[in-house]
Amino acid sequence: MVQRELFGRWFDELAAIGAMAERGWRRFAWTAEDRKARLWFRRVADSLDLDVECDRNGNLWAWWRRAGGMGRPGEPKAIVTGSHLDTVDGGGAYDGALGVVSGFAAVDELRRRHGTAAPPRPLAVVAFADEEGGRFNVPCFGSRLMTGALAPSDVLDRTDADGVTLRAALEQVNDVDPHDLGRDPRRLATIDALVELHVEQGRGLVDLGHPLAVATVMWPHGRWRLVLTGEANHAGTTRLRDRRDPAVVASYAVLAARARAEREGMVATIGRLRTEPDSANSVPGRLTAVLDARAPGDGILDRFVEGWEAFLRERAAEHDVQVDLVCEARTAGAEFSGNLHDRIVRRLRGSGVGVASLATAAGHDAGVLAHHVPAAMLFVRNPTGASHTPSESASDDDCIAGATALTTVLEDLAWA
Amino acid sequence: MVQRELFGRWFDELAAIGAMAERGWRRFAWTAEDRKARLWFRRVADSLDLDVECDRNGNLWAWWRRAGGMGRPGEPKAIVTGSHLDTVDGGGAYDGALGVVSGFAAVDELRRRHGTAAPPRPLAVVAFADEEGGRFNVPCFGSRLMTGALAPSDVLDRTDADGVTLRAALEQVNDVDPHDLGRDPRRLATIDALVELHVEQGRGLVDLGHPLAVATVMWPHGRWRLVLTGEANHAGTTRLRDRRDPAVVASYAVLAARARAEREGMVATIGRLRTEPDSANSVPGRLTAVLDARAPGDGILDRFVEGWEAFLRERAAEHDVQVDLVCEARTAGAEFSGNLHDRIVRRLRGSGVGVASLATAAGHDAGVLAHHVPAAMLFVRNPTGASHTPSESASDDDCIAGATALTTVLEDLAWA
Repeated sequence: MVQRELFGRWFDELAAIGAMAERGWRRFAWTAEDRKARLWFRRVADSLDLDVECDRNGNLWAWWRRAGGMGRPGEPKAIVTGSHLDTVDGGGAYDGALGVVSGFAAVDELRRRHGTAAPPRPLAVVAFADEEGGRFNVPCFGSRLMTGALAPSDVLDRTDADGVTLRAALEQVNDVDPHDLGRDPRRLATIDALVELHVEQGRGLVDLGHPLAVATVMWPHGRWRLVLTGEANHAGTTRLRDRRDPAVVASYAVLAARARAEREGMVATIGRLRTEPDSANSVPGRLTAVLDARAPGDGILDRFVEGWEAFLRERAAEHDVQVDLVCEARTAGAEFSGNLHDRIVRRLRGSGVGVASLATAAGHDAGVLAHHVPAAMLFVRNPTGASHTPSESASDDDCIAGATALTTVLEDLAWA
Repeated sequence: MVQRELFGRWFDELAAIGAMAERGWRRFAWTAEDRKARLWFRRVADSLDLDVECDRNGNLWAWWRRAGGMGRPGEPKAIVTGSHLDTVDGGGAYDGALGVVSGFAAVDELRRRHGTAAPPRPLAVVAFADEEGGRFNVPCFGSRLMTGALAPSDVLDRTDADGVTLRAALEQVNDVDPHDLGRDPRRLATIDALVELHVEQGRGLVDLGHPLAVATVMWPHGRWRLVLTGEANHAGTTRLRDRRDPAVVASYAVLAARARAEREGMVATIGRLRTEPDSANSVPGRLTAVLDARAPGDGILDRFVEGWEAFLRERAAEHDVQVDLVCEARTAGAEFSGNLHDRIVRRLRGSGVGVASLATAAGHDAGVLAHHVPAAMLFVRNPTGASHTPSESASDDDCIAGATALTTVLEDLAWA
């Protein structure tokens, strides 16, 4: 079992960074909080005699390897674990952090079991850069650049809420060169397996009564920006039939997304709604909204968005409101390696660990890498099922059980 | 007929104050723009030999009266016309301004007809303070304080968007003392009739084919702030049945307000919708909205809000969302003087002017005063029906016809 005291200390150190009391955590990429978290990563890695490197896309790697090893012909390929250090605005303490802390705790435990000599296969703890995309709206930044799923030129000019471009933000940090971002096939080729541990973001495990699950698939998902343009007018004197009210059309859109998602067994969310002018006694002239939709299959997701858009345009035409719908992000679904999934389940059940299999509708770096290397995810039970809020959690016992299971899995893979 | 060139010059001078090009006009009360507009009022009044005074509530009065007259026992009471100088944010050039300019143009025309000797009854042009309430959300500030409908202590601590209190704003102007605000019954008692000319804020006159109308009633109206509190959660991993989504409840509220208003022959508007956290991949935790509702009668309005709230609470209970609904403003309906209405219609039709009768669903200072003194309103046709936007308008010919009709009405009343 991993060291409870050490695990708690690392977790608390990381949770002290970017904490905003009852408003939760904010550790946006390439900020002062991010810098502190990355320095924490380097310090912990150092205490475990791991070599830290920052790759061209800002992902941090802490290596347990033979001197001079890695990437040479004939050399064994690496077993990698980890997650991310950044959070959404007002997020919780577990999302991302739990995977990185558990990775370090597992390495510590493996060093206790096997001594400090390197394992047969190199082992690494990774912290992928800007997984949440909270600042520049570019989720899975580091992993998607690495695999080539994201082109640097498509995102370097994006701005944060203060108008700072991603390029300018990267020019302020001293371990990433914005000119050097991009595909990193050589690094991908050195990975034999990636196992990301993550707090569960729903109540699947609560319902099943297990502390841990292994992921089966990651649902495809996407984000669409909707701008409805009508005509601002006086709220008292404009007759209902003369109105071009985007709030009415948006309300149909919200209810239709919910009802259609229910029918398809998927999820759809309108998380942002904003009227302009923001005037109590005006019919709004414009309304901006964002649709987030995720489904068990790419075809289901595409058909959902098509059908929803057609319905929306009909309602908008009735109200003489203009519709602009733009796809801002679309991530293909990912199937995690069946072999790796089965091997992990077998190994854990063999050690007497209660483990389920679950699909995930959240995006993850492991899902991005799953298109290129064998990848797996371990989920730790979350009593409330809440996520991206300070109320997400996992019990101490479940956290220790998760990190211990991760140790078992990494040992099985690296000492194979 | 009033002087077209003079009318155009005054209108253009006022329209040059607070103009923001295609974003319309902003002349908020107690700002630099307001000061310029008030100085313009004094300058025009001076050019017509009118005496200007500012009353205890910041309303400006330009008097055509005998030296030493006004308010003494046995003296004839005054005929008053005018409107307001302030605008909403991004409003048009006509709302308020047209009534003040027309009042001055009518006085000029009456001086041409009758010489400069005072009329049998004193005549005044008034500019009521802060009619729109665009800055402190306190509409009909000057007229409601004057009649006692508004208590100074209820509003002096209200703040504008920059956090400046109304008290502090008033302390910056040199013609109003915030300690001296309040009921002004003596001034009310000197008014024999108030006639406010205003650009129409809907398409009633366009449909009827008349350039002018006389108001019958002002609809009761109110404003209710709605806060819906659910639970912020991950947009991907939170199952639909586990969500407490305030955006879904708000959407029912918007559609129900619209449908119920249609059935009742009234208007209802949700002009503000705002989600928190404003996050694309979260179920929103809270949604703030404002309902503006207006009906042909106070009973209809009250029943509408009751029924709508009950429906809303049912939907909210289904989604486990908390409802907080607060009435922020409620203005009783007003019936304009039937005698004055009929006299004006008869006089204008007798002069061959095409004039209709219309109710108004907008708030007006004349509606506030109608509870205390005989009051009337003249509406001038608005081709688009738009209001509180830069696209509100009236043709030059209709403006001149309106000011000329106002001259006829004032002459009929003051030389009676």
